[in-house]
Amino acid sequence: MSEKSDKIDKIDAKIVSLLSEDGRMSCADISRRIGDVSERTVRYRIKRLIDGGIIRILPVVNPASLGYVVIADVFIEVEPAFIQEVAHKLASIECVTYVAFSIGERDVSIQIAARTNSDVYEFVTGTVAKLPGVRKTTTSIVPHVLKDLYTWPVPVEAIR
Amino acid sequence: MSEKSDKIDKIDAKIVSLLSEDGRMSCADISRRIGDVSERTVRYRIKRLIDGGIIRILPVVNPASLGYVVIADVFIEVEPAFIQEVAHKLASIECVTYVAFSIGERDVSIQIAARTNSDVYEFVTGTVAKLPGVRKTTTSIVPHVLKDLYTWPVPVEAIR
Amino acid sequence: MSEKSDKIDKIDAKIVSLLSEDGRMSCADISRRIGDVSERTVRYRIKRLIDGGIIRILPVVNPASLGYVVIADVFIEVEPAFIQEVAHKLASIECVTYVAFSIGERDVSIQIAARTNSDVYEFVTGTVAKLPGVRKTTTSIVPHVLKDLYTWPVPVEAIR
Amino acid sequence: MSEKSDKIDKIDAKIVSLLSEDGRMSCADISRRIGDVSERTVRYRIKRLIDGGIIRILPVVNPASLGYVVIADVFIEVEPAFIQEVAHKLASIECVTYVAFSIGERDVSIQIAARTNSDVYEFVTGTVAKLPGVRKTTTSIVPHVLKDLYTWPVPVEAIR
Amino acid sequence: MSEKSDKIDKIDAKIVSLLSEDGRMSCADISRRIGDVSERTVRYRIKRLIDGGIIRILPVVNPASLGYVVIADVFIEVEPAFIQEVAHKLASIECVTYVAFSIGERDVSIQIAARTNSDVYEFVTGTVAKLPGVRKTTTSIVPHVLKDLYTWPVPVEAIR
Amino acid sequence: MSEKSDKIDKIDAKIVSLLSEDGRMSCADISRRIGDVSERTVRYRIKRLIDGGIIRILPVVNPASLGYVVIADVFIEVEPAFIQEVAHKLASIECVTYVAFSIGERDVSIQIAARTNSDVYEFVTGTVAKLPGVRKTTTSIVPHVLKDLYTWPVPVEAIR
Amino acid sequence: MSEKSDKIDKIDAKIVSLLSEDGRMSCADISRRIGDVSERTVRYRIKRLIDGGIIRILPVVNPASLGYVVIADVFIEVEPAFIQEVAHKLASIECVTYVAFSIGERDVSIQIAARTNSDVYEFVTGTVAKLPGVRKTTTSIVPHVLKDLYTWPVPVEAIR
Amino acid sequence: MSEKSDKIDKIDAKIVSLLSEDGRMSCADISRRIGDVSERTVRYRIKRLIDGGIIRILPVVNPASLGYVVIADVFIEVEPAFIQEVAHKLASIECVTYVAFSIGERDVSIQIAARTNSDVYEFVTGTVAKLPGVRKTTTSIVPHVLKDLYTWPVPVEAIR
Repeated sequence: MSEKSDKIDKIDAKIVSLLSEDGRMSCADISRRIGDVSERTVRYRIKRLIDGGIIRILPVVNPASLGYVVIADVFIEVEPAFIQEVAHKLASIECVTYVAFSIGERDVSIQIAARTNSDVYEFVTGTVAKLPGVRKTTTSIVPHVLKDLYTWPVPVEAIR
Repeated sequence: MSEKSDKIDKIDAKIVSLLSEDGRMSCADISRRIGDVSERTVRYRIKRLIDGGIIRILPVVNPASLGYVVIADVFIEVEPAFIQEVAHKLASIECVTYVAFSIGERDVSIQIAARTNSDVYEFVTGTVAKLPGVRKTTTSIVPHVLKDLYTWPVPVEAIR
Repeated sequence: MSEKSDKIDKIDAKIVSLLSEDGRMSCADISRRIGDVSERTVRYRIKRLIDGGIIRILPVVNPASLGYVVIADVFIEVEPAFIQEVAHKLASIECVTYVAFSIGERDVSIQIAARTNSDVYEFVTGTVAKLPGVRKTTTSIVPHVLKDLYTWPVPVEAIR
Repeated sequence: MSEKSDKIDKIDAKIVSLLSEDGRMSCADISRRIGDVSERTVRYRIKRLIDGGIIRILPVVNPASLGYVVIADVFIEVEPAFIQEVAHKLASIECVTYVAFSIGERDVSIQIAARTNSDVYEFVTGTVAKLPGVRKTTTSIVPHVLKDLYTWPVPVEAIR
Repeated sequence: MSEKSDKIDKIDAKIVSLLSEDGRMSCADISRRIGDVSERTVRYRIKRLIDGGIIRILPVVNPASLGYVVIADVFIEVEPAFIQEVAHKLASIECVTYVAFSIGERDVSIQIAARTNSDVYEFVTGTVAKLPGVRKTTTSIVPHVLKDLYTWPVPVEAIR
Repeated sequence: MSEKSDKIDKIDAKIVSLLSEDGRMSCADISRRIGDVSERTVRYRIKRLIDGGIIRILPVVNPASLGYVVIADVFIEVEPAFIQEVAHKLASIECVTYVAFSIGERDVSIQIAARTNSDVYEFVTGTVAKLPGVRKTTTSIVPHVLKDLYTWPVPVEAIR
Repeated sequence: MSEKSDKIDKIDAKIVSLLSEDGRMSCADISRRIGDVSERTVRYRIKRLIDGGIIRILPVVNPASLGYVVIADVFIEVEPAFIQEVAHKLASIECVTYVAFSIGERDVSIQIAARTNSDVYEFVTGTVAKLPGVRKTTTSIVPHVLKDLYTWPVPVEAIR
Repeated sequence: MSEKSDKIDKIDAKIVSLLSEDGRMSCADISRRIGDVSERTVRYRIKRLIDGGIIRILPVVNPASLGYVVIADVFIEVEPAFIQEVAHKLASIECVTYVAFSIGERDVSIQIAARTNSDVYEFVTGTVAKLPGVRKTTTSIVPHVLKDLYTWPVPVEAIR
């Protein structure tokens, strides 16, 4: 499983890198910036990257800019019969920005964005902990996020 | 701090929502989909949302599509003098998709994407744990991520 | 949020400092000790500090002087539906000197003053742990308190 | 050790209770409010309570009013040879409002007042954790304090 | 509380020390071994030590000599309403050699003597854990006891 | 290993039980209390129980009677090269009443008798934690001991 | 208990060692490889080793060869009344390769073989955690097993 | 990865099952027991199963039969630079029956077979904990193993 992926080559990677500067950069501009690749190829390549599930081009919202300046991780232990339900309910709540399952001691982990520490406490004890099946929650305030998946570049070793 | 943000109104939210379908949707299409907003306004609004730091339009790469099918959370306890250095070094490593500081027992938490469980073990014990200042690591395999920040919509309560 | 508070200046801070020696020091004495501030100004300043919620002038009772020589911290995990009730019930009990909510693993933390270790054990297992909704308690004996909020001076960096 | 203290009777308790309303209430007012106790007795009683170490009359500063809106508990494990030094150094730092020794797993526990969660993180990792002898810190954000020692009344069972 | 006890002097301590060699040593022998203390005084002193609750002269049974070669500590978390009952029930069981209450995370701690590790497991899961009110047990095998209370000598600093 | 011990029969058990009332009860009295056993047999049996290592007749000192009213358990993690040394040093200290090795997370566990909680704290942080090789200590106050090995009777199932 | 076992001598050990190369090696070949032991003796010795319960000759299946490339340890806390039932149910499940009881904090520990991390998560939360009596599970992925009981040789010190 | 393995069919599975009764059962006997499969096919199938790495036919030694009646799990935290060395050193020690790497809090886990609990303690503190790079060990006694990998049958769902 350590061989290179067939799905992405240097031109693809260059396109993704330019889109990271501006996800709406025109194919013409991308073509010009790369140099020896036609606008048409760029358009085709972007389509293939999206259709192949390699990338999604999305507007990532910055919670802090909307006043959600407090970020917190919550690790949740859930009665097994309720895990799917708890995870999906949490995923449908607006202030929840991340929901994942976890192998270890905790079953589900989430990240939330809130306006104040009190809002975090109230959300965790008043909403999360009251969902049917939730047994225990552990909360950690996150003072700063340095890198996030949406800025994750294509790894060099994955490029054909 | 619980008052509504001044920064985003219903039209902005609608634009962000359409961009979530396709981050490269043309302003003309967005205008047509919304109905009573001109293409020019859409263009201006998108520019203001980006310049105001509310959104970034980005290509989000899907690690699994490139063969990185194993996701793991690593919680790291670091000698205080080395925290900044450890966090920045980890952020510069390709297989690390997330780096954040944490208030509680652990100082830094990261998420990594790997091809196999052995690669996770090797990366954690061979790279993370050997960074100067790292005292202890705790790793959790993440079998599935249900929701991520890059799909986080503008919360209704934040809309003016 | 790191700018100086508007609420307190050097004269206020000097007055608070003198009141820390004796909370009932007369305004005339305070005026004399400061030197270039009239008794009337002192009186006005104290009133403003109190009315503005900056200080409260209070008799702080010393539990040890009344025979409550054992201090203990109790960390309490509570069923979410009962947190407010548990916290308020504990706050109404005489031997409880401190009640706070906590973000992390425990929901409520209290401090108690008791005559003996047996009284601590009896209070924790016989009263705290029996409140409806209390799931688990962890107790730590506090052999000595070196500094407490009621002796907290106005921080220099907060003075205008 | 469970017998009543000799140090405080009902009149003392009534005086302390009135001072809790206003620590600078005049002895004349206190005498009038109690009814059958002379101003002179009140003055004498207050002096005896203070000289006997039962109460201290103090201006308690409200951190939140000065912009210190974030409260955090930090539990600290210290090399034994450094415990006294660490505790005293922490007690001398302005943003530290509480310092105590603890019997259990942690050696020292403190409470701090800060302007933001980032300031808490920076203080814990940049100052506390770097003190010589500090081995490990665990931090908990305190969203709300419901009762504090400085509002602790004389317990009924301690009154002669 | 750090002053010397009035209850025991050097002669008492010497008598206790000789009884530690042989709890049935005759008063005549003790008198002879000490030298300048009459047999009558020895008899009186022993009686006073016992009547004063300072010492008990007892046959301490060695579990290993009877085939109980495995010693284990069990720490027990109990529903508060059941603590007294659980502790007393355990104290009445033959293989339980020690029962105490504990301030911290666990409510009751016991020591047991068993013939094999399987007997320990069976006793803990089959008897202790099934007592009404027992929530959780943690067991530690004790491979060797180096010192026990019944060989604890009178501390020098306690001798008048 | 589950067969009955050969070492003790009903008469032995009866003698041990009577010695538990008074370790210095004369053989004549024991003979009379049992009824059909001669004084000579009693003397012989006691000698055999002691010589066979089944019992030791000892004066057990009551720490509380000498002012050591606070009991604490201390669990100690030790660098492996120092375990024997740490255990033996602790066993030689007067306020330490129990020392044992432990299989699990902690290497050595002790019980101490002290005059006050402050003395416990000072002993643990000032003496135990400073022994070369000691890595970490966890202390639990013991408010009451209900049963101890020195009052452990011969189990019925061990009697031939 | 530290004396040598009577059950195995150097010839036995040599036979076991040769069978480790190939469990179906013929007695003739074993005889030839050892040199001075007849085929008949070899046959007799193997029979005695098997009949005496010293060895079992078995086909050990390699899970990875069948696609079960993920190994995980699961530690399980069980209501005491259900321990036997839970352990036996788990032992009857195909993907469970190891089931044991455990003295400590957890009651039962198992090892499982699965095709993917998701299958591990699904099995633990969907099957293990739902067995009646299971209170809590903790899972650890095992990236590599270096030595296993079925390759455990006869220890030199056990050979007569 | 969830499709059926190509490597094993019903006849193979039947052969493996018969070998589990007796790993040295002759091909003729196996052929007779199955019924419609020739001895030659059986021989060929066994060879293919072994050569393909599906099974190994081995003599599994029973530690208890040689006096190693105590089984213990030891979880080990290791300095990352020493993990490979520690694991390999442990694998080379006779009383160690299992060595594996682990993703979570502990780096290496082993199982040992010993004659007594004291031997376990001595081995863990005297050998394991003293290996260069070992930071911490946690030991659990295993009173009974119910199922082990060497009795793991071919799962039905893996059979073609």
